[in-house]
Amino acid sequence: MKIDINCDMGESFGQYRVGNDDAIFPYITSSNIACGFHGGDPVHIEKTINSAIEHGVQIGAHPSYPDLGGFGRRFMQVKKSELKSILKYQIAAIKGLVECKGAKLIYVKPHGALYNQAARDEAETTVIIEALQEIDPTLILMGLAGSTTERVCKKRDITFVAEAFADRKYEPDGSLRSRLKPGAVIHDPEEAAAQVLSIVKEKKVLAHGGLEIPIVAQSICIHGDNPTAIDILKKIEVALAENNILKKGFAK
Amino acid sequence: MKIDINCDMGESFGQYRVGNDDAIFPYITSSNIACGFHGGDPVHIEKTINSAIEHGVQIGAHPSYPDLGGFGRRFMQVKKSELKSILKYQIAAIKGLVECKGAKLIYVKPHGALYNQAARDEAETTVIIEALQEIDPTLILMGLAGSTTERVCKKRDITFVAEAFADRKYEPDGSLRSRLKPGAVIHDPEEAAAQVLSIVKEKKVLAHGGLEIPIVAQSICIHGDNPTAIDILKKIEVALAENNILKKGFAK
Amino acid sequence: MKIDINCDMGESFGQYRVGNDDAIFPYITSSNIACGFHGGDPVHIEKTINSAIEHGVQIGAHPSYPDLGGFGRRFMQVKKSELKSILKYQIAAIKGLVECKGAKLIYVKPHGALYNQAARDEAETTVIIEALQEIDPTLILMGLAGSTTERVCKKRDITFVAEAFADRKYEPDGSLRSRLKPGAVIHDPEEAAAQVLSIVKEKKVLAHGGLEIPIVAQSICIHGDNPTAIDILKKIEVALAENNILKKGFAK
Amino acid sequence: MKIDINCDMGESFGQYRVGNDDAIFPYITSSNIACGFHGGDPVHIEKTINSAIEHGVQIGAHPSYPDLGGFGRRFMQVKKSELKSILKYQIAAIKGLVECKGAKLIYVKPHGALYNQAARDEAETTVIIEALQEIDPTLILMGLAGSTTERVCKKRDITFVAEAFADRKYEPDGSLRSRLKPGAVIHDPEEAAAQVLSIVKEKKVLAHGGLEIPIVAQSICIHGDNPTAIDILKKIEVALAENNILKKGFAK
Repeated sequence: MKIDINCDMGESFGQYRVGNDDAIFPYITSSNIACGFHGGDPVHIEKTINSAIEHGVQIGAHPSYPDLGGFGRRFMQVKKSELKSILKYQIAAIKGLVECKGAKLIYVKPHGALYNQAARDEAETTVIIEALQEIDPTLILMGLAGSTTERVCKKRDITFVAEAFADRKYEPDGSLRSRLKPGAVIHDPEEAAAQVLSIVKEKKVLAHGGLEIPIVAQSICIHGDNPTAIDILKKIEVALAENNILKKGFAK
Repeated sequence: MKIDINCDMGESFGQYRVGNDDAIFPYITSSNIACGFHGGDPVHIEKTINSAIEHGVQIGAHPSYPDLGGFGRRFMQVKKSELKSILKYQIAAIKGLVECKGAKLIYVKPHGALYNQAARDEAETTVIIEALQEIDPTLILMGLAGSTTERVCKKRDITFVAEAFADRKYEPDGSLRSRLKPGAVIHDPEEAAAQVLSIVKEKKVLAHGGLEIPIVAQSICIHGDNPTAIDILKKIEVALAENNILKKGFAK
Repeated sequence: MKIDINCDMGESFGQYRVGNDDAIFPYITSSNIACGFHGGDPVHIEKTINSAIEHGVQIGAHPSYPDLGGFGRRFMQVKKSELKSILKYQIAAIKGLVECKGAKLIYVKPHGALYNQAARDEAETTVIIEALQEIDPTLILMGLAGSTTERVCKKRDITFVAEAFADRKYEPDGSLRSRLKPGAVIHDPEEAAAQVLSIVKEKKVLAHGGLEIPIVAQSICIHGDNPTAIDILKKIEVALAENNILKKGFAK
Repeated sequence: MKIDINCDMGESFGQYRVGNDDAIFPYITSSNIACGFHGGDPVHIEKTINSAIEHGVQIGAHPSYPDLGGFGRRFMQVKKSELKSILKYQIAAIKGLVECKGAKLIYVKPHGALYNQAARDEAETTVIIEALQEIDPTLILMGLAGSTTERVCKKRDITFVAEAFADRKYEPDGSLRSRLKPGAVIHDPEEAAAQVLSIVKEKKVLAHGGLEIPIVAQSICIHGDNPTAIDILKKIEVALAENNILKKGFAK
């Protein structure tokens, strides 16, 4: 039994710092690296790629709508043909920066509002798939477990990695509990580790309200801006070890 | 006898249009494609790459200081280490977009204030060389004939393509006549074509004031925003043909 | 009988030029001046304000979603509280630049996707009204004739100026014919002038399909990027004079 | 005896946070508020203006070169006429946002590389003075004590407030010790408070190497990103009280 642990990385911009990348890298197996359109800049992107390589962590591109001011979290109605170019540019930049160091870009995970839109909208997912395929047909798409993104990938025979969340509560219908509602974010490391174990071992998660619902995921996402992120990662590390679950990049 | 003709291309941004790319492509052999930091956006960059491939025109990356508001024409004091990342990102993006179409990125020509700074400053040229070498050691650097850029490339054994200008007047010391002075830009197609012939055949150019000065160049640059650009290109086409000079990409 | 003629102005950015402001200013009575978030920059904004003052043309702020890359034409899901700050900043910048020249900012007309969203969504219109009221309660709001924006302004007793279009075809339901459909834009100066006369004199417009529909507007908008804009403006000028209709700023 | 204490505020951008504004406001008497060109965005600017008003803290505009990616710390060769428009736009935006709350914009302090350039270059200072005068002739300019900025203001009869630094070491020639050298930043609250007392009471500061040099300042600047900023501010508060020095906005 094995599982991948991913986190959004390299989102600092200029003098602005976000996340806690140096502390998080030792605990993760996949890094979703910002491409400069919602966060990240060439300096931080290159530094983050170097860190990922040093830690033997898989590298994914984490492209976004072009919205630095909104950190990519605002839906933007971008024409499909334009969005495809916007995504290809971002993926190409990361791919080139990764490959010139002798490493390989493994996957793409859309960011923020783009991720959420793709999770519910076939057309948006299709644009992402086309962008990724045109840049490099071996690229894997990472997205929300049980989403439209997953369904479209299966239909089109695109390699897809489903992710579940260690630190977010699920609703009984399988969706993520809105951050506007109480209890949406799990801060307790014990609870987060238990949720991970349940997802990996039982393929189930305890939803808000007490119902156990099915979930199938090959990767677990941790939010680096969760103040207890490091404690959650340490607790997950211990829990996986105690249960003989291998923490490993999904493509390794 | 042969010569390359290059032009800055793909500099339109969003709804903003500059240049006359569609009309210019048939006449040039090398296209310096904007990377999005002084002009260009993913949509126009991709469109321009497609056009270059259709026309069999060599593709170069045309990176800049990060200054969309100043079109890359304002000197910026960027730390060398940051500038290198900024250049690598831009070159990587273009390289990936070119390669996914089965074409090849041949060269890099710095843009605007970065070009001018590199032409007189060894440290700035060195950063550009390192960026280009780290992304792809086969990349060729294009720069000002007789400049510090050329001298540094020779010293470091970097393949360099020297460019001269069809539509700019030279000073007796070999520098370009400042655009702030009268007669800096050549608008007359006859005069521009004569200057090109002189550069290619005689390795000389008639400077302001009447002195003939030596110049060695493998490529001729045309400014697409010169209102008579197309007429100049047509006249050069005829002049080259009449003199049995082959118009050909420098790397072909 | 009188009518106001407005046009979007000052949308050039850095080295990029759009519109034909110098040629248009003599024909209009209100100028919607870009604020720098979809187009315009401090240099062009200030130049445009100077031109408006010289021509005795009314000045309005033309704020937008923060989307230079999309020229403000892409809908963005911005939180209401954030949107209000974004609009206040833009209006304040224009107001200060206008007032320091001894002139007065008269009105606000939202741009592009924000205009369209406000025209159908009460909440978006409400944010615009609040922004405008908080900056200066004497500011007038300009928007689409017959829209939600107009309805909300009437309900809240906000001074509203309804605009109709000289160069856009209407649908039988009073909406603008989509630019994706044939015949959406009127290029013929005669037809545009006839539409203006019909709106001003008859308070009717001939919709696509032949039906005459009612429309009440105090201002007529011309699109400066319409290639026949100047010819349309000249023809309107003549038509208004022949019909003894005074061309005059709505607040004069 | 009295002194003003100022700090750069409102520099957060979108999801990015810098500084510790809420904790700092109770201790300062002047706030240099970012204008959105090096940091700050409409949301954070408005929030910061509200806080300044609540705390009775004087408000200044803190304009910059247009360089969000470099936090305004990179020198940019901007044409004087363009720089003036860029500064006027920023000052106008802050002025409008301040005045619509019934408060007053008191002063302008240039940011980062613009501040440093103005401190040594008469032409750059002159542009800043013209921008400020054109927007509002009652605006006061804040700059480096003993600098070219101060000298030009005196010559032109512009009201100038000289600032000295609590947490930066001075060189024997009166310049600030470069951040690249050891001991450039003072972290010890005792030492910072002693430096403030020396500046205010003795009009002298102990330079690196042990020489006491003269300095005349009406305001003391604290860097909010100094990790000991709050401790320094508290220690200064106590030291000023013990010495019967009134902490007060320079214009009050």
